[in-house]
Amino acid sequence: MINFESDYTEGCIDEILLALKDTNHEQTSGYGTDPHCENARNLIRKEFDCKDADVHFVVGGTQANLIVIGSTLRPYQAVVCAESGHINVHETGAIEATGHKCMTIATKDGTLTAQQVEDMYLNHINDETFEHTVQPKMVYISLPTENGTLYTKQQLTDLYTTCKKYGLYLFIDGARLGYGLTSYENDIQIQDLKNLCDVFYIGGTKVGALFGEAIVILNPALKKDFRYNIKQRGALLAKGRLLGIQFEQLFTNHKYFEISKHAIACAYEIQKALQDKGYTFLYQPQTNQLFPILENTKMEELRTQFAFHTAGKIDETHTAVRFVTSFMTTMDNVNALIKAL
Amino acid sequence: MINFESDYTEGCIDEILLALKDTNHEQTSGYGTDPHCENARNLIRKEFDCKDADVHFVVGGTQANLIVIGSTLRPYQAVVCAESGHINVHETGAIEATGHKCMTIATKDGTLTAQQVEDMYLNHINDETFEHTVQPKMVYISLPTENGTLYTKQQLTDLYTTCKKYGLYLFIDGARLGYGLTSYENDIQIQDLKNLCDVFYIGGTKVGALFGEAIVILNPALKKDFRYNIKQRGALLAKGRLLGIQFEQLFTNHKYFEISKHAIACAYEIQKALQDKGYTFLYQPQTNQLFPILENTKMEELRTQFAFHTAGKIDETHTAVRFVTSFMTTMDNVNALIKAL
Amino acid sequence: MINFESDYTEGCIDEILLALKDTNHEQTSGYGTDPHCENARNLIRKEFDCKDADVHFVVGGTQANLIVIGSTLRPYQAVVCAESGHINVHETGAIEATGHKCMTIATKDGTLTAQQVEDMYLNHINDETFEHTVQPKMVYISLPTENGTLYTKQQLTDLYTTCKKYGLYLFIDGARLGYGLTSYENDIQIQDLKNLCDVFYIGGTKVGALFGEAIVILNPALKKDFRYNIKQRGALLAKGRLLGIQFEQLFTNHKYFEISKHAIACAYEIQKALQDKGYTFLYQPQTNQLFPILENTKMEELRTQFAFHTAGKIDETHTAVRFVTSFMTTMDNVNALIKAL
Amino acid sequence: MINFESDYTEGCIDEILLALKDTNHEQTSGYGTDPHCENARNLIRKEFDCKDADVHFVVGGTQANLIVIGSTLRPYQAVVCAESGHINVHETGAIEATGHKCMTIATKDGTLTAQQVEDMYLNHINDETFEHTVQPKMVYISLPTENGTLYTKQQLTDLYTTCKKYGLYLFIDGARLGYGLTSYENDIQIQDLKNLCDVFYIGGTKVGALFGEAIVILNPALKKDFRYNIKQRGALLAKGRLLGIQFEQLFTNHKYFEISKHAIACAYEIQKALQDKGYTFLYQPQTNQLFPILENTKMEELRTQFAFHTAGKIDETHTAVRFVTSFMTTMDNVNALIKAL
Repeated sequence: MINFESDYTEGCIDEILLALKDTNHEQTSGYGTDPHCENARNLIRKEFDCKDADVHFVVGGTQANLIVIGSTLRPYQAVVCAESGHINVHETGAIEATGHKCMTIATKDGTLTAQQVEDMYLNHINDETFEHTVQPKMVYISLPTENGTLYTKQQLTDLYTTCKKYGLYLFIDGARLGYGLTSYENDIQIQDLKNLCDVFYIGGTKVGALFGEAIVILNPALKKDFRYNIKQRGALLAKGRLLGIQFEQLFTNHKYFEISKHAIACAYEIQKALQDKGYTFLYQPQTNQLFPILENTKMEELRTQFAFHTAGKIDETHTAVRFVTSFMTTMDNVNALIKAL
Repeated sequence: MINFESDYTEGCIDEILLALKDTNHEQTSGYGTDPHCENARNLIRKEFDCKDADVHFVVGGTQANLIVIGSTLRPYQAVVCAESGHINVHETGAIEATGHKCMTIATKDGTLTAQQVEDMYLNHINDETFEHTVQPKMVYISLPTENGTLYTKQQLTDLYTTCKKYGLYLFIDGARLGYGLTSYENDIQIQDLKNLCDVFYIGGTKVGALFGEAIVILNPALKKDFRYNIKQRGALLAKGRLLGIQFEQLFTNHKYFEISKHAIACAYEIQKALQDKGYTFLYQPQTNQLFPILENTKMEELRTQFAFHTAGKIDETHTAVRFVTSFMTTMDNVNALIKAL
Repeated sequence: MINFESDYTEGCIDEILLALKDTNHEQTSGYGTDPHCENARNLIRKEFDCKDADVHFVVGGTQANLIVIGSTLRPYQAVVCAESGHINVHETGAIEATGHKCMTIATKDGTLTAQQVEDMYLNHINDETFEHTVQPKMVYISLPTENGTLYTKQQLTDLYTTCKKYGLYLFIDGARLGYGLTSYENDIQIQDLKNLCDVFYIGGTKVGALFGEAIVILNPALKKDFRYNIKQRGALLAKGRLLGIQFEQLFTNHKYFEISKHAIACAYEIQKALQDKGYTFLYQPQTNQLFPILENTKMEELRTQFAFHTAGKIDETHTAVRFVTSFMTTMDNVNALIKAL
Repeated sequence: MINFESDYTEGCIDEILLALKDTNHEQTSGYGTDPHCENARNLIRKEFDCKDADVHFVVGGTQANLIVIGSTLRPYQAVVCAESGHINVHETGAIEATGHKCMTIATKDGTLTAQQVEDMYLNHINDETFEHTVQPKMVYISLPTENGTLYTKQQLTDLYTTCKKYGLYLFIDGARLGYGLTSYENDIQIQDLKNLCDVFYIGGTKVGALFGEAIVILNPALKKDFRYNIKQRGALLAKGRLLGIQFEQLFTNHKYFEISKHAIACAYEIQKALQDKGYTFLYQPQTNQLFPILENTKMEELRTQFAFHTAGKIDETHTAVRFVTSFMTTMDNVNALIKAL
């Protein structure tokens, strides 16, 4: 069975396993205060050209989201997100468990527009009973989105301009950031990000690491006492260096983006094959997640050989499915899928 | 600098690194539903002789504590613990962040007695205004305690009997469980634990693993829907197999306890040396944490060569310090410390 | 300026003020343990024919909602409600502040159907990643709804049957219960309610009292330790008898429903006048809240003499407004409005 | 049975009932936006000489406490209080339910000293693992304390100076503020309070009102968006004017303090009688709460005629009890008690 279910079905890049072995007997202090973490932070600051940013490592994406959002908002404030946003649909209410509402906006493809955010904000402040409703204070987007779609640089610039206009923080969930920034359709440079949001995180789990996400805080207003929040939520790894060691490897020689390109190339091969065969897509194929619409008979046939998720029934005889490639996808597996299609 | 600060200053046992390498290219489903996790669960059930227990893996101890406690208590209920309990002093209010009070009991050495718990419980239900106070519902203890001390089997039996008498759940934090159960002074068998509490966790972070704790739920009342809670708190590791692979290694051939014995042996050498030299201890030395009282001049002298924490000022010229050994402590380092003493 | 903004613009029925005066010098114990509260509880049990119900008094509706929902759900569970549900839009995230998500369903007029609830539930349990989403456990409806609309007995029976089928609790927000049960279009008997939900509350604030809501718990599973929850949320009134005294008056000689009928009669006069003049309505007029669609010029003209809320722009020249009558509305004011229309 | 259990056993001052009657048919907007609330706010600002303060009304003391504390602290911050502080022992974990720890300090009589707060603060910031512990950020005291004791002006000045030195907010729970400021032993002027804390509340429930507490926010940093917090916690009374009307009466002609003086005079009569008869006290008698130590036989004898709470067993034959006088205590009842003693 060949697995296209997700980008976390395997382990990590070999360099990380080697580094873990090489450093295994080093004695370091815990909780992210070791030299590997410090080095990794500097590599990230350099790669993203944000020398004043605070960088914190946590183990997973839900942790990153609930800590960033929970530590930023006052109790009566809410985070604005797409209805399909990961925090709204796939984190078992982790944000609400910190006391905050997700104010959702219906979208076509998972991206929010500046206009939608402006409308929601104005709707709140113009409400006769505004104090009886939660106050929007942070906007959460995923880059790329849960549907594999992208923001253009212009769209993201507009969105952030609107956020700043109304005093809203913009937070980018980059669980698959590498796959977004290396997409053939992307026009956002790595160094642009520092000007396009208040805080973002760089996903390691889905892009080469065993686990780990790097939270990059650009806006000084969000930096204070952040480590307390990490600890309180159970996300301050005792052997914190494990995160530092992994991100050291990922950000040495731009490895993070090199391996991302591989996943994009694999996805593009599958996309082309699907398009050649006349398949349509539920969402525009842009990154490493593809959502082709298959005949149910075809889907069942593929299932004998491949593992993948479904993404919604289209009609009685068709279903949208999801194929995900990753840093570890082999061309053999890609070719097997193409052949089976 | 030789480090006796804690039992998480190094990496992991070599077997784990080898297993990670061997399995790195396997494709598995995520979130703990893979064969490694299932195998590790069975190994643990066998080792602790509790075939009906539910076993869940999380990354760290604070996660284990906040999930077990937060998922068990109703909003108005509290967890009872020693004033020195880890949840009360070293988790940045993680329990309170789930909405619950820690009802603390002052202790001599970190252990709670059945009598203390009974007194607290009766005090609550006999209060004229009992509904104006939180309701104690779970008792949290650490085995061994944060002070390195132990419960005898009789003490733990009495405590659990009292808990059951009053409908209180007993939860054992086993962050250092291996070091407790292999102590020369311990009289609790591994297979006894299943009869002595409702839920406990087996610490991996401090005992051989890179990270990871195994929560073992014995009482069926606490089992329902537990994975939802893990996910909500950001503790459901995407590549869950990393936890399974580690615990597979730790519970193959009783490795977990073998490596624990090593730490105990190291600590005992240091303890004997200290006692020979006439040092006294803040707490009775029983496991891998030693709290000798040193002259300040001696302490400063040691600091030029060794890293360790302090544990409280005794008087103007004396301070209690903490030396911790681990599964990875070398006899060379032990001897260096003994020599320096 | 005549006020049709809401049903809480005035004080209370005269009988309550008299009773407060008569009892002012009585000495009673606090927190709802006094004879007036006990008597009021019994009057309510008798009126609703539910002798085994637990009855608790709180000061306001948001309190009632957050306590009932917060005390029922486990941390990972959610409450299902209409998008227009009061808890979702007008309580500043009070439910989320207790840690729980509101799972919303879009509706035409504010009522949920059995089918919608069944679909949502099945959608959850059939989700491949169900543990990554909140678990629906309670359904919240308002009777009448925030739009002034009603459930038929059949609709409510179907809804509750579906809830029971899937182990969901049904909670009825009766902030305006009197106006619902005395509507000319209502076919639910007072004594039916005990069979149609697990818990409901009887609104006093909007129906004759100075303040106060009576929570009626029918399902024994929800009764345990409820007073702890009331206290924890700051809702256990010290001079609890004030609530008892008010509900004693409201449920003596069916006063509660008598005064509700008056509001319905007033609303009906306005409704008829509107219909005679050819106005249409945003929602079907059924209770004491009317949502006629006015020309903007007419709306502005009325505003010189009347206070009322708007309920949404219909087009460039029309707006829906809301007129609310109450137990205290005078026929003079009704006639003044009719004349102005 | 004559009741000395508490200061909330009766209703309210007659003026309030008259004002409720006189205003019953007025139509006003809800939620504290009416002219009575505005007038009451101004009367309070004048009485306490704090024209720039924000004044908000809530129904009860637990509400006031949880809203002030919950809206001020960041998630990882804690409130410092005496072990006997009301928030720690008699609010069913209301503060913890907002996510925050109460950091307690053991005291003799319920008062905190500047030195104790400084020690706790320094202990935190000097902790090697300070991020693993909650951060103290607000100090909560009661004036008078739950034990009926007082702060001198010097003590309170020292405490607030220390708070400001370390960036801690000082919050005064004035549930019985009137009884504190009119005590014969008090040297704090009404107009002093504005310089001695960041926020305080004026208790109405125990001092003349049917219910209601007025939160006075002095520090501008705590003012922003406060009404959202009130609404979220279910504490924004729909008919908010009921609070305004009551505080209008209490702060017209210094009524609040006049009625407080009466309670103090009553308590002083009882105190003198007790002292004359040689009784000793658990806490120094200073306000309207007296804690004499009685022989158990005497206590049982009194119980046939009087209701009162106990405050702790002293020895096998003696118990401390609590007698509370109030604005409504009659001299007949005082004399009856004195006679029975």
